[in-house]
Amino acid sequence: MRSLYLAAPTQGGNMAVELELASVQNQRIKDLVKLRDRSARDKNNTFLIEGYRELLRATEKNYPIEQLYICRTLFLGENEETLIASISSRGAQIFACSEEVFRKISYRDRPDGLIGVAPQCHLTLSDLNDILKKKKTPPFLLVAEAIEKPGNLGTILRSSDAVGLDALIICDQCTDIYNPNVVRASVGTLFSVPVIETSSKEALKWLQEHQIGILAATPSAEKEFTQVDMRVPLAIAVGTEQLGLSKQWMQKADLQVKIPMCGMADSLNVATATTLLLYEVLRQRK
Amino acid sequence: MRSLYLAAPTQGGNMAVELELASVQNQRIKDLVKLRDRSARDKNNTFLIEGYRELLRATEKNYPIEQLYICRTLFLGENEETLIASISSRGAQIFACSEEVFRKISYRDRPDGLIGVAPQCHLTLSDLNDILKKKKTPPFLLVAEAIEKPGNLGTILRSSDAVGLDALIICDQCTDIYNPNVVRASVGTLFSVPVIETSSKEALKWLQEHQIGILAATPSAEKEFTQVDMRVPLAIAVGTEQLGLSKQWMQKADLQVKIPMCGMADSLNVATATTLLLYEVLRQRK
Repeated sequence: MRSLYLAAPTQGGNMAVELELASVQNQRIKDLVKLRDRSARDKNNTFLIEGYRELLRATEKNYPIEQLYICRTLFLGENEETLIASISSRGAQIFACSEEVFRKISYRDRPDGLIGVAPQCHLTLSDLNDILKKKKTPPFLLVAEAIEKPGNLGTILRSSDAVGLDALIICDQCTDIYNPNVVRASVGTLFSVPVIETSSKEALKWLQEHQIGILAATPSAEKEFTQVDMRVPLAIAVGTEQLGLSKQWMQKADLQVKIPMCGMADSLNVATATTLLLYEVLRQRK
Repeated sequence: MRSLYLAAPTQGGNMAVELELASVQNQRIKDLVKLRDRSARDKNNTFLIEGYRELLRATEKNYPIEQLYICRTLFLGENEETLIASISSRGAQIFACSEEVFRKISYRDRPDGLIGVAPQCHLTLSDLNDILKKKKTPPFLLVAEAIEKPGNLGTILRSSDAVGLDALIICDQCTDIYNPNVVRASVGTLFSVPVIETSSKEALKWLQEHQIGILAATPSAEKEFTQVDMRVPLAIAVGTEQLGLSKQWMQKADLQVKIPMCGMADSLNVATATTLLLYEVLRQRK
């Protein structure tokens, strides 16, 4: 059951055509719920962007949004209508949902009434060539090998944005960057950090060809991470939560560093350890 | 329904008396499930410690464990029996559970067959006096005001352990440190970092009396966090995920620093930002 109506003018002054969705049985709603699963995301090459802040950052970076699902009774702020008008003016279809419908498609406990559907964007190592050609300072890259937890990947994106990283290279990915919890933990910085997807084999070959040093953190290193020169062309490599970097990366690392551990634990959370290394580059390159 | 039997000798060589729990209807099981909620934890003054690594770290720090629930078919490693013998020898009751029962009390997707019940330990500012009396180096404290997400609090504990923090002062707590997800994200470092619980008002008074400088991070600060002297007696103060530090802390801060943000976002995840500040203290005090 779907009814159509011409919506009242939005606060932004635009006349946006809105379709109304009031039934959770609607096939469109069922398809949206499926986008929480990677298989459906991969099949459709789309993903969900939930939340005002996340959608705002996507539009700030001119990221295309195909559909926008809204629920006005759930809005938390005052600028939602401006954002809706902006997304609508770029060609997105707007769907006004009942609260029941919206809560069905939302993956948050406290939804804020805004969910977009956007095409996935996949960058490769040849895109990275173009990115680095435009740069005048030494390359500053991060390689994340097989990170499992979406929250960690999102936090790594957030820190990558904060240090102005050239690109994040994701190798042998376990969690795809379009997982709703990655989008969420990244707080929308997914749209500002170029993410290259490839295999460890290809990434290692590319880094070697471009003479970019690989830095790996390991408890067995002699030097602390604040004691090596990070002003050179650099790719920091980090591995899985459980096992750290794989042998193939560890063996090819040009620099090995340790993060001092003064307590009972032998490792930090992978996202916090990554952030320490990223900010050390920033400190040294100032 | 509960049946009792004398268990076979454990691999550690001990003869541990084990009670068998095979029904999810058992009142004891129902009470354990309730411990996921703060109200039940507060009422009983106990909490759950789930996982081999977490329980191992608790025993390494001689943290008392009253009951241990085990499910041998879920064990992942080879050292579980040694740990069980060690916990049993210190007086804990051991309960052998069916897989169905264990999965009911576990809060993990992939339980590893070990859950302990332990008394809560509450430290106050007078305990902190004792802790600092034994120290020869300048105090190194962290104040966390009203952190909401258990994962962030756990990660902060993990980083606090790693830098050898004297104590974590939790003010006006939203999430109690005995939340199962705090225990989990801390990977057991909850047992190595002294945690003081108090109000912001009391903490501010205590810090002033003890002439310990308060350092606050704010985007409006002039100096970067790597540009101020952190070798002095110091309490780093961090605030909520959404709003940062409250006015009462910001106004009393002796040092204000900013973390450089080069991207589109205006803040980092609170646990990663905290870790950057903690490690900067370590770097400067080397």
